[in-house]
Order: sequence, then C-alpha cells, then structure tokens
Amino acid sequence: MKVHGLPVKRQKWSSDFGEWFRDILINAEIMDYRYPIKGSGVWMPYGFKIRKNVLQIIRDLLDNSGHSETLFPLLIPETSLAQESAHVKSFEGECFWVTHGGYDPLKVRYALRPTSETVIAPMLKLWIRSHADLPKKLYQVVNVFRYETKATRPIIRMREVEPFKEAHTCHTSAEEAEQQVNEAIKLYKQFFDDIGIPYVVSRRPDWDKFAGALYTIAFDLLCPDGRALQIGTVHNLGQNFAKAFGITYETMDGSQEYIWTTSYGISGRGIAAVLIAHGDDNGIVLPPKIAPTQVAIVPVPYKGKEEEVNQACADVATKLKEANYRVELDMRGDLTPGNKFYYWELRGVPIRIEIGPRDLANGVVTIVRRDSLKKQTWKMDDVVCAVKRFAEEITRDLRTNAAAWMKERVYRVNSLGEAKTLLKRRAGIVEVAWCGKEDCGHSLEEAVEARLLGFPEDTTEKVDGKCLVCGESANNIVRLAQAY
Amino acid sequence: MKVHGLPVKRQKWSSDFGEWFRDILINAEIMDYRYPIKGSGVWMPYGFKIRKNVLQIIRDLLDNSGHSETLFPLLIPETSLAQESAHVKSFEGECFWVTHGGYDPLKVRYALRPTSETVIAPMLKLWIRSHADLPKKLYQVVNVFRYETKATRPIIRMREVEPFKEAHTCHTSAEEAEQQVNEAIKLYKQFFDDIGIPYVVSRRPDWDKFAGALYTIAFDLLCPDGRALQIGTVHNLGQNFAKAFGITYETMDGSQEYIWTTSYGISGRGIAAVLIAHGDDNGIVLPPKIAPTQVAIVPVPYKGKEEEVNQACADVATKLKEANYRVELDMRGDLTPGNKFYYWELRGVPIRIEIGPRDLANGVVTIVRRDSLKKQTWKMDDVVCAVKRFAEEITRDLRTNAAAWMKERVYRVNSLGEAKTLLKRRAGIVEVAWCGKEDCGHSLEEAVEARLLGFPEDTTEKVDGKCLVCGESANNIVRLAQAY
Repeated sequence: MKVHGLPVKRQKWSSDFGEWFRDILINAEIMDYRYPIKGSGVWMPYGFKIRKNVLQIIRDLLDNSGHSETLFPLLIPETSLAQESAHVKSFEGECFWVTHGGYDPLKVRYALRPTSETVIAPMLKLWIRSHADLPKKLYQVVNVFRYETKATRPIIRMREVEPFKEAHTCHTSAEEAEQQVNEAIKLYKQFFDDIGIPYVVSRRPDWDKFAGALYTIAFDLLCPDGRALQIGTVHNLGQNFAKAFGITYETMDGSQEYIWTTSYGISGRGIAAVLIAHGDDNGIVLPPKIAPTQVAIVPVPYKGKEEEVNQACADVATKLKEANYRVELDMRGDLTPGNKFYYWELRGVPIRIEIGPRDLANGVVTIVRRDSLKKQTWKMDDVVCAVKRFAEEITRDLRTNAAAWMKERVYRVNSLGEAKTLLKRRAGIVEVAWCGKEDCGHSLEEAVEARLLGFPEDTTEKVDGKCLVCGESANNIVRLAQAY
Repeated sequence: MKVHGLPVKRQKWSSDFGEWFRDILINAEIMDYRYPIKGSGVWMPYGFKIRKNVLQIIRDLLDNSGHSETLFPLLIPETSLAQESAHVKSFEGECFWVTHGGYDPLKVRYALRPTSETVIAPMLKLWIRSHADLPKKLYQVVNVFRYETKATRPIIRMREVEPFKEAHTCHTSAEEAEQQVNEAIKLYKQFFDDIGIPYVVSRRPDWDKFAGALYTIAFDLLCPDGRALQIGTVHNLGQNFAKAFGITYETMDGSQEYIWTTSYGISGRGIAAVLIAHGDDNGIVLPPKIAPTQVAIVPVPYKGKEEEVNQACADVATKLKEANYRVELDMRGDLTPGNKFYYWELRGVPIRIEIGPRDLANGVVTIVRRDSLKKQTWKMDDVVCAVKRFAEEITRDLRTNAAAWMKERVYRVNSLGEAKTLLKRRAGIVEVAWCGKEDCGHSLEEAVEARLLGFPEDTTEKVDGKCLVCGESANNIVRLAQAY
C-alpha cells in the first residue's frame, strides 16, 4: 500500500510520474496490471466505480444530444476491414487476428476491432434508405484491441483498450458532417470541463490523421512529466467509408447520394486523465461528481467517549445520505484514525469529516478537503450545507488549478533552438509559426525531436511570423510536444 | 415491419415460434442479426435500452448482496486455459483462437474467453492472502465467445454471447460455498420473478455439468414451441480451480488451505426470456419495470379539435413524467393513430393512453393495456393513479399467466412410451422416476429422444416409483425435455 515518495509540487513529478501512475492504480485499487497478458488490465471494484461514474457523464451528454447507445460485434471479417484502403493499410499491422474456431481454421480470418467504422458500415448500408433516416447518431462503449509494439502502460497504452466510447454519425451533406464535428468538440469540452481536465484542441497534421478520415481534431492533456497525452479525437470521415461500403440514401428529389460520416472517441484515457490532472503525492483526487465515495466520515474516539463519537458520526452519515451524498462511515476497528485518513486520501475521496470528543463538545465537525488538505470546523447542524459548499469549491478549484498549471506550460517561441531546448527538457507544449507545408512539418518534428500536435482549433489567433524551417511567411501557429 | 401472422393463442405458436422470434427482434428494433459474421448480432437502440434495464435489475440484486462489479480481460493465454484439465477439455474445441498480433505469430495463442474462471483465477491468486480476504464476491458483464457448431439463433445461441453476466465467488469452506450456491439461486429466482419469467430449477446430471464444477444447478424456461431453454446456471466449483491455480489462504490457525469457489451466470437469454415468455401475435410485451417506454400517449384528433386534443395529451405526458414514468408523447404527423397503436404494441409498451375529442369532452382518457389489449376509460385527473394501478396489474398478470402456461406443461408420467409421445410432440417438460445411475440416464435420453434436465431443486418431493429403464425402485424425479 506504499505510494512512492514523490515531491508534492506537481511540476517536480516529471522524473517518476510513470512510476507514480503505475503504483497509484494498484495502491488505490483502480486497475491491476499484473494479468498474464501484456497490455491487459483488470478494473478492480473501486476503479470500476470511478470508470462507471466517468462514463455516465459521457453517456448523459450523448443521450441528451440525440445519440443512441448500441452494441456492435467485436469481430471483423478481414474482407470488411479491407474495404476502405487507407483504413486497412493503417490497421492491419496493429490487429489481433482470430484464425481458428475450435480445431478448424477459419475461411476468412477475423480482426478484433481496433475501432468500429468497418463493423458499423455494413449495418448502416442496411439501415439507411432515404433522407428520412438521417441524421443518425449512434455510440457504443466497448473494448478495442491494438497490437501495440511500443511499450504498454496501464490505461494509457493498452493492447486491450477498455473502455472505448466511440460515436458514429451519418449525414446528408458535408456541411452537416462539419456541424457534427463541431458538436462533438463542444460535447467533449463539456465532458472534460465537467471533471476539471484541461486540454488543448488541435487539428492533427495530415500524416497523423485517423486512417480514412478527411481530418482529425484531437484533445491533448499535458501530463506532469511534460508529455502530451491524446485524450479524445473527432474525425470527419467525409464520404470515404460511404463510398467504400456503398452506403447511399435517396435524396428529396429521388436521386441516390453517398452519406457523409463522422466518428469520435474517448478511451480509458478519459479516466486516466482525471487521475493524472488532479493527483498528488498522497494519491488520487476525485472531483465529487465522479467520486464513488464523496464523503468519508472518520470517528476520532477517545477513551470513554467512543459511543457518543460513533453515534455523532452515524448521525452525520445519515443526514448526508438523506441529502443524496455517497457516504462511507468508516467504523473499522482494526485501523487507527491516521490509517483511515491515509486510506481515504489515497483513494481521492474529496471530503473527509472527522469527529472527536472536542468537536462533539463544541457541536462541530472537522471537515478536510482532499485537494488542499485544509481543515475547517463547522457547526454540526450545518454539515449538509458545508458539504455542498466544499463539493462546489473542490470541483471549481480542481479545474482552475489544473488549467492554470497547464496554461503556464504552453510556450510561444520564435526559434528552433528555443523550441528544441524547451521540448528536450519536456517543459510543455511549444507553439511556433509554420507555413503548413508537409515537408516543413516533418523537418520541424525532426529538428526539435518532438511530435507535431497540429493547428490550434481552440483559438482563431493568427500570427505574423515566418516558418522556422523554410523561412516563408506563416500565419499559422502549430503545436509541438513530446507525446505519449 | 411485418410481424408474421401467428395465432394469438400461445400454445399454437410451436410451428413457427423460431420465425416469430427472429422477426420480432428486427421488427421491434431489438437486435439486427444480419451482421456478416454468423452468430454475431447488433443491439439496436431500442433493444439496447431493454438490455440495460434488464441488466440493471441483476446489477442491483448483486450490488445489494455484497457483490462488486469488475472487468477482466477478454484474452486467455492457452497456458491458463489448460490449467484445469476438465475445463480445457470441454472448452478448447469451442474457443475462437487468436494466433497473430499484426504480422507476427504469437508465442502462446490466446482464446477469446468462453467464460472467465481461468481469467480470474490468476488474479485471485494475487489478491487472496488470508481468511480476512474472504469471502470475495465479484461479477462482470461482458461478451463471451463460443465456436458453436450447432445452428446459431439470435440471442439464444450466439457465437458472440452478449451480454454475459458472470459472478465468481471465493470462500473458506465447502459449507460457505454451498451457502453461496443457495444465495445465487435465491437471487436468480428474484430476478426472474421480478420480470415475470417462469422456470424450473434442476440439478444437471453429472455428464452435463459445467466443466470443472462439482455440480451445476440450472434454470430452464419452457418456450412456446415446447422446448426448454436454459436461462441461468449456478456452479459449485469446489476446490478444483483453486488447486489448478494454487490459490490458497492462511487460516485462523496459520496453515495454508485451498479456497472454495462458485460461479454463476445469466446471458442474453435472460433478455430473450422476457420476449419469449410474454410476447404475442402483436409483438413483444414488456413488464413496466424494464420497458424503455412505459406509457405511450397517442392523440386521436378530429378536425377542428387538433389543438385541444394535442394539448390534453401534452398535459397528461407532463403529469406522468413528473410522477417519474418513462413516457413517449407520439406527435408524429405522418402516421395515423392506428399506425401508432401498432408501432407501440409491436414494441411491447405496457400502457397506451389515447385521447380523442369525445374523451376530452368527458374529461377522460382511454387506457389500453398491452398484455390484454383491454381498453378502459378513466378520469383525466386520476391518470397518474390509473397508470400506477395498471402497471402493477400488468406486472402481476404477466407473471401469473406465464407461470400458469408453463405449469400446465409439466407432466408426471410412469411409462417410457407416454414420456416419448409427449416429448415427441414437444408437449413440455416430462418428469419420471429414475434410479440415478448414469447408464440408466443415458438410456433414458436415448429412449425418449430428449435431454435430461436433471433432478428438481425447487421441490423436495420424493416419489415411490421404479426407474423406467432398469426397473429398480426409485425415489427421485428427473426432468426431461426437448432442449435448445
């Protein structure tokens, strides 16, 4: 149950952030990564609850914006995967392949879905007849599989990626597909804002877009080690998949037209992001909305006062439960109050309430915020109001602090040397001017030894600069970072 | 959108029950079975909602009885699967095998989980140290895979079985494991009772138990075609998996002891059962608790009265939503009221409310029960009370009628000839006396050309009979049926 001794200041995490993350997952009982297959993990009971609460936010956002949840098969016949040429080229080397059923070799081998465009397309072809069937907005929450050759990391780079929330939409026009991309970006912003995760939104360069897409827009979080983590992507697929699978609809005037499609996804990284953006030396820190336990109540008994203290704790627990908070009353007899504090801090429970004999005598409770670890005493009668207020403050402060931390680490520079130095020491995200030519982009990545995240989609700012590679005048900013 | 013309009386379904079931799944937009891989289906939006509501009942039952939800990997290294000898022998010919990652052959091939005992065992070995870690009660809702060589059927016999709710528990003694089996049976009874599904509970004969179990207890539903459908199983695994995987715990007195385990599962058949047990010629019939839409409100407008009628419908919808009912106000302009009635009946919506000008004039609504199709008028002011009452009545009547139908089809007979005749015409479940010897059991199955479901576990009744095969005196009843 040891949490590795990291300095509390987040900017000092970089040296052993990876170790912190691996340890916290098992110590806080989120994911056990010791399964005999590399890149597969087990969502443990506590982690499963966090996962469920995070997914519920996404589900609510999608359900309330006209998306319908569905569930499509896992297996893809190789013949389907191969129908969109750019898609298969990118994915065939990354798929796990099923070749046998029992003792029989299969006639056509099956890929474990790496993503579901080619699973859904043959069904869309059956379902879509006319403009009246459009738009269609579907999503599913599933596992997907990538035969990663890079080093795997729990949640962040898995071979069995679980969960993967993928939405797939169909439209009658390019404009409508474009609007859907914008809606998806808006929904994802709401989701990340809701759990306090900061991000930059960038249009990926052409060579880094999703295979089969017209373009890809991605959300990146800066991790404490100065590396960018892609936490969500939105793809405009144009008519590529529609043409590959022959998905047409009858227009108002009776002609047949290919549909336009989009897809967008958030994986388990959306859960990892919460742990990464808010965690500290003592463990994870959960925004109240997704915390399986929002309030932990710990009696601090004193000889002869056990009964009164325990009763007061039980009363407070009852009050908070009646007010619909998720409460744990920690009456374990084999742990000291100190052990219990440690236990709940590690697990990121946003609010802890302690009641000891002195609190009891004064008619107060001691409330401790997990994010700041600050203690305050409150009148016992006002405990529900206090919890409401603290929950709001924690939600706000987690978001504000994480955003401020990340914002400080976005640098605008004018020279390759400066960019390279910042990126080499993983200072954060570096913005430079770029002419937009693919050659210069590749040269840029090579020169600074980092990844091009793409053009900002979250600002319309133009610069009056020069491309750092070819020297031509450049209006566009482009972002670079070391990336996971 | 055509529902095949079946006679309304359920006992006459047998000839085309299979066709009815296939058609209803796609017509009511539950599952689309036309995916390019045989035995894989797509849960469509409406079906997904039914699936979710059914699963929620199971989840609540398990969560409230000390089970924790988790999520384990899909892939099983062949070396793990092979650790329990009876288990691998039964499953290796039924597994889908992953042999390649990208272009590389895997060193050890992976099975797609056919069930998760051998996935969970290596983790239990890591998690369980002492008696303080026990009991442990975990479950997950996942997809499992069986390379079925029999004809596949939507939901009922899939190659990708989805969902599969599987629980896995660990205990310190044989008695505790036995108690857990009893708890599981109790929970499953509650689940099936809750959605009105009748069943018999039987201890499977030894040759038909789960591979690796001491014994298996199964729930069977009788389908309208007279065949038994296994809808849930509970296995006492004894110490078989513990010994195979070396899972021990330290007892109170410091010695090491193997744990005892159980597992129990309900698949998508738990959802199919609702459709099968309650459906009729007009479509499916859903118990209110799991109906995605509990009340459909259809205006029956009359020229010049459209506005008032629509307003009255909207008011009733608001009232019912405020009372937390799931309501659809069907204002579609391109469908006649008759089309709408048909639409909601097909989808099994338990209560339909119609409001026409005459209802309006009388201050009443017309309420139609989906199960009986009976109409009644009620004061508009009392509509919430009426819906509450009808929902309760429908829940009760669905259960009562389905149970009565099945009970009538359980026959107790004294001769092989009689048994054979009943089973040949798929009259239902046949109970006979059996000495209990395996040889006689096999002979019995052969003689009557049916499957031995096993000994009743839902009655302690003993008979004073003779085994129909060897003629020896027999106190035990055994059940036989044509089975899916």
